[in-house]
Amino acid sequence: MSVYVVIGSKHDFSYALKCIELLDKFGIQHRLFIASAHRTPEKIDEILHLVKENHIQVLIAMAGYAAHLPGVLAARALCPVIGVPLDSSSLLGLDALFSIVQMPAGIPCACVGIGESGAKNAAILAAEILALQNSQLQERIKAYREEMKEAVIQANREIAP
Amino acid sequence: MSVYVVIGSKHDFSYALKCIELLDKFGIQHRLFIASAHRTPEKIDEILHLVKENHIQVLIAMAGYAAHLPGVLAARALCPVIGVPLDSSSLLGLDALFSIVQMPAGIPCACVGIGESGAKNAAILAAEILALQNSQLQERIKAYREEMKEAVIQANREIAP
Amino acid sequence: MSVYVVIGSKHDFSYALKCIELLDKFGIQHRLFIASAHRTPEKIDEILHLVKENHIQVLIAMAGYAAHLPGVLAARALCPVIGVPLDSSSLLGLDALFSIVQMPAGIPCACVGIGESGAKNAAILAAEILALQNSQLQERIKAYREEMKEAVIQANREIAP
Amino acid sequence: MSVYVVIGSKHDFSYALKCIELLDKFGIQHRLFIASAHRTPEKIDEILHLVKENHIQVLIAMAGYAAHLPGVLAARALCPVIGVPLDSSSLLGLDALFSIVQMPAGIPCACVGIGESGAKNAAILAAEILALQNSQLQERIKAYREEMKEAVIQANREIAP
Amino acid sequence: MSVYVVIGSKHDFSYALKCIELLDKFGIQHRLFIASAHRTPEKIDEILHLVKENHIQVLIAMAGYAAHLPGVLAARALCPVIGVPLDSSSLLGLDALFSIVQMPAGIPCACVGIGESGAKNAAILAAEILALQNSQLQERIKAYREEMKEAVIQANREIAP
Amino acid sequence: MSVYVVIGSKHDFSYALKCIELLDKFGIQHRLFIASAHRTPEKIDEILHLVKENHIQVLIAMAGYAAHLPGVLAARALCPVIGVPLDSSSLLGLDALFSIVQMPAGIPCACVGIGESGAKNAAILAAEILALQNSQLQERIKAYREEMKEAVIQANREIAP
Amino acid sequence: MSVYVVIGSKHDFSYALKCIELLDKFGIQHRLFIASAHRTPEKIDEILHLVKENHIQVLIAMAGYAAHLPGVLAARALCPVIGVPLDSSSLLGLDALFSIVQMPAGIPCACVGIGESGAKNAAILAAEILALQNSQLQERIKAYREEMKEAVIQANREIAP
Amino acid sequence: MSVYVVIGSKHDFSYALKCIELLDKFGIQHRLFIASAHRTPEKIDEILHLVKENHIQVLIAMAGYAAHLPGVLAARALCPVIGVPLDSSSLLGLDALFSIVQMPAGIPCACVGIGESGAKNAAILAAEILALQNSQLQERIKAYREEMKEAVIQANREIAP
Repeated sequence: MSVYVVIGSKHDFSYALKCIELLDKFGIQHRLFIASAHRTPEKIDEILHLVKENHIQVLIAMAGYAAHLPGVLAARALCPVIGVPLDSSSLLGLDALFSIVQMPAGIPCACVGIGESGAKNAAILAAEILALQNSQLQERIKAYREEMKEAVIQANREIAP
Repeated sequence: MSVYVVIGSKHDFSYALKCIELLDKFGIQHRLFIASAHRTPEKIDEILHLVKENHIQVLIAMAGYAAHLPGVLAARALCPVIGVPLDSSSLLGLDALFSIVQMPAGIPCACVGIGESGAKNAAILAAEILALQNSQLQERIKAYREEMKEAVIQANREIAP
Repeated sequence: MSVYVVIGSKHDFSYALKCIELLDKFGIQHRLFIASAHRTPEKIDEILHLVKENHIQVLIAMAGYAAHLPGVLAARALCPVIGVPLDSSSLLGLDALFSIVQMPAGIPCACVGIGESGAKNAAILAAEILALQNSQLQERIKAYREEMKEAVIQANREIAP
Repeated sequence: MSVYVVIGSKHDFSYALKCIELLDKFGIQHRLFIASAHRTPEKIDEILHLVKENHIQVLIAMAGYAAHLPGVLAARALCPVIGVPLDSSSLLGLDALFSIVQMPAGIPCACVGIGESGAKNAAILAAEILALQNSQLQERIKAYREEMKEAVIQANREIAP
Repeated sequence: MSVYVVIGSKHDFSYALKCIELLDKFGIQHRLFIASAHRTPEKIDEILHLVKENHIQVLIAMAGYAAHLPGVLAARALCPVIGVPLDSSSLLGLDALFSIVQMPAGIPCACVGIGESGAKNAAILAAEILALQNSQLQERIKAYREEMKEAVIQANREIAP
Repeated sequence: MSVYVVIGSKHDFSYALKCIELLDKFGIQHRLFIASAHRTPEKIDEILHLVKENHIQVLIAMAGYAAHLPGVLAARALCPVIGVPLDSSSLLGLDALFSIVQMPAGIPCACVGIGESGAKNAAILAAEILALQNSQLQERIKAYREEMKEAVIQANREIAP
Repeated sequence: MSVYVVIGSKHDFSYALKCIELLDKFGIQHRLFIASAHRTPEKIDEILHLVKENHIQVLIAMAGYAAHLPGVLAARALCPVIGVPLDSSSLLGLDALFSIVQMPAGIPCACVGIGESGAKNAAILAAEILALQNSQLQERIKAYREEMKEAVIQANREIAP
Repeated sequence: MSVYVVIGSKHDFSYALKCIELLDKFGIQHRLFIASAHRTPEKIDEILHLVKENHIQVLIAMAGYAAHLPGVLAARALCPVIGVPLDSSSLLGLDALFSIVQMPAGIPCACVGIGESGAKNAAILAAEILALQNSQLQERIKAYREEMKEAVIQANREIAP
């Protein structure tokens, strides 16, 4: 039950942390890589080799600009790849969003939202996928949803006691 | 090993077919529903009940305009939900894309591309998720990739014999 | 003569205040809720129950990202629902705007502008709707318009005495 | 219980018809005007005079391009004004949408979706507003929602008998 | 040889100053007004009356959001109206740009760039229009262009002496 | 009292005709040129020479794509230059609009709407500028506005006799 | 003096032809490939091998959707890579444009316009690059520019004899 | 082996520095100019004269707003011109991007990304073009790529030792 998180640059580290925090919360084993689709194709090969060897089940890839990283991984891994577009450039993350979500027919990439909310949702989506084979994880997701619900209800209570 | 495909309107039927064709090709059992998040909340309840009862593992939801359908399903199902934004309105599918991919933190939706390519990729992504527990399906995905590769190589041969 | 204001998250509280200040100014009774369309569907049920029981006449819903809250309320309440898109994400509020204004035919949502100006206009629009049955409120709206006019004329006087 | 529908040009007539069909269905009296905010300011004065004299309760205004018509009416009528952005120009209706929904604080306009779906939703929103004082109309709205629900359920039945 | 500058709100004052500074530099008489197309229609009437009475030759109007001010003036004045879209809302000034530049056929508005560069260019465009009847002003525009040229050449000299 | 109309390509001829028809209606002398800012810089020089020699008072320039033509003319002519963005490329005219309206401070271009409505409005704006020195032309503009008004009133009469 | 043209799909063939026609006109040797960055990574390897072996000097890559092809080639070839974004999806080519032009720092891609004009300009840009070492080619480019100039002048003559 | 870098305004100096730093790193001779396409056409003439006289092989032009500078240079120089769109205006650099990349067929401009990443990539692209005739430079590009690779690998090592 393992997830690899890959970021395209060390500048994206804070987003990776948001994701990893949630993976930890769900008790999902993970490993973080920095690897650039363009600058370190060998690193990508190495990661894909490890994915196969270690039966990694979900890949999460985050990148800004013309974000090819998720698509490049999706094209060569067989497991589902979740892409997180980051707003690193001046274009608000629209460039990364289009580069990830608009994959041509044949090679899908599971795109979530831009930036921090996407980084968190990538972890939860990974958990949902893994939970299909793991009832304990399913319970943890349910608990997490309850927690979120409680937080909203608590906030509601505070503004309108 | 089952997938439910939900479309928001009968006008989206042709997109559903593109998806279903591929699910069939992968040998994935599926069932198609028309249900509107806004007009038929009870139908949504019913689908969610069936999802639970029949241990459905992946939901695929397609919608245009302010496409709430995938998010509404994602909020209430525990299994992964794949959203396909359709370009039914004048806004080229940007409205549906934003309504699906920009889910706030906590409730993820796995968004694929707009329109036909997205409809196909939804099926493949579903197959990749299901294949984590099904080595036979994994072989079929590999075969499909080989087929696509062959088609490109064949096309290349034709233009440059 | 009552209005419910619903925000999707406690982070949207400052926008709710801008709206409530104006409702107070018009002497309109109101109640504020925090409820998430996705995280707390039961809370939505509860609000809709109160809407019916207390003959609430206008709902104002504010949300950012893929803002489903106004549409979800509009689908199930019979009274008019005013939606305020917030610019919480990197996309300047365009995601929330499209998620609210582009409702498919059948379930309308009365969308106002993004952010603070929208939050204020939601209150005024609610007042205009309620004033159809309340001549006193109509006088207050007229007075408010006079005030705005005076403020512009005063500002004009100051720059060009 | 009357609604005025105002279009900015005779080219927008087909959209007006979609709206009027629904007003008729709800049994709402209406009158259609062609009047341009820029070309016929006197016509606008005349309409506003009639609005006052005949106690018109909701104005629906449709326009494309830099759509000032809804805002100009909203600035001078006291009743709620619903704006329908049309995609008459090359910009897909984004120009009309921004010109209607982004009204500055103080003068709200209830914006619905671009084009035909917006034209229909304007009629339904008007009905919802008028129904606050008319329980018979409220029943008709409920019936209309039932009809829509039935149509979806029927479509669902047809594709999956 | 006179120009009126109209801003929609006192918040736009700094942009008006950028424009007025240049009008002063060109020796063009001007007067500044704050007037809202929506909040103070009477003020608009008054300005239009003064335009006629004082043979004002160019109107400059600046506004943000759904910027109707330039179009409303253009519809009723006979002299050319220059519109300056401001980025007051979250939409970067795109809302104001579309609301000004996309005037429907029949009532033109001379739109310049968003924000400060537009505010300056409005003054220069006004000068160019007035210079058609004023050879002295034409000389001042030529001198201004020389000045700009000198500034660029000087900057070039500084970085590459 | 003369206007030059410059188009960047023979493919833009139909837009030029819409403009010229209106110039004719106003009795404004005009001459049409095809000249490309990039392909025929010498032709641009020649036009600018004729502008000076013949005391041309307004230049109208229409172009699609990265529409530099209006800006290049504006930089070198002293008279006002009106730019008409055309939707020749896939980008709906947004590329041409931004290339014309967003001129940096110092060299203004009077931008009108995209495509046909802009082509017509360019003629009317030119007429308004020229009318500052020509009371007869001012009467023709008034008559044209009356005509437009009549057309709207007539259309209104037809739909609601 | 050789150029490789790579398209991502056989559906892009007509664009490749526009490019090749111009390469032929300039007397530049070329070869066309169909290869998908995602579906046929081995084909990409093969092309890159041929690029090296045959001392290919410029690569032209055309693709629509999330167009990774030009970037993937640019990351691994040492010669300049020209990218042509195609408008194959509903997003007008904006998705392909952002996926090509917004390459992160380190791996540049020379992006030209969307669609047919870009396909032609790719050929001309390739010619300009190759002409740095080939004075004969430089003459052909000059001749081509003269031809374009003549075409514009001829068109101008036809509309205004 | 020389490159000219041209910026449209002294405000763009910091971007030029990012580019020049990399040109220095590659040992490419360069010279920086400030010249405005609109304000200093003579300066443009002078630069183009120097380009010819000194056999300059690549031009890099950076500009914001309606960025005509790269296109104006491309239209008159025979060597390749690289354009860098800057986000100087409120429109995030989209205006400059469209003004550079969407050059009509016939006059190409090699567009790179918006802002700093584009400024750097312009230098690298220039190096790739020049390296076609300079094997030493080709080695330096390879070394630079190795350096980038090392930086990514080093960053990866730091986060996951």
